[in-house]
Amino acid sequence: MPVVVIKVEYLPGVEDPEALTILKNLNILGYGGVKSVQTSKSYQLNVQGSEAEAKKIAEDVAEKILTNPVIQKYSIRILKK
Amino acid sequence: MPVVVIKVEYLPGVEDPEALTILKNLNILGYGGVKSVQTSKSYQLNVQGSEAEAKKIAEDVAEKILTNPVIQKYSIRILKK
Repeated sequence: MPVVVIKVEYLPGVEDPEALTILKNLNILGYGGVKSVQTSKSYQLNVQGSEAEAKKIAEDVAEKILTNPVIQKYSIRILKK
Repeated sequence: MPVVVIKVEYLPGVEDPEALTILKNLNILGYGGVKSVQTSKSYQLNVQGSEAEAKKIAEDVAEKILTNPVIQKYSIRILKK
């Protein structure tokens, strides 16, 4: 069964509030060496069918459901064929 | 500047409510081919210092701040040395 991973992250230049909060708190806690933080969310889908079908479904799902194209982008990776 | 990625995911056997909601909705929307979903969150840190220092900071941060060890686990990957 193909396994696809959809990774959703913020577009460059878009503020990532969770990352900014983490960075601020790391600096307060003494981890001043951390200069920047970026977050991303991944969704791993186990899909029945061919690799091509799995990729098509992942693209559909990423575009229609998981990504807000105004502020986010996605990338798809086939983990297992 | 070393770049480290901390990936936080649910432990096996722990219910992932977001993944279950996505799976249910994908099936309702006609993507019956999707048999299971797992989510994970990644934090990419740009750290000043050596690779060893960056790894140490990432481990600290993952353990103390980003992971709830009762239900989650983390893995660390050095992206750039």
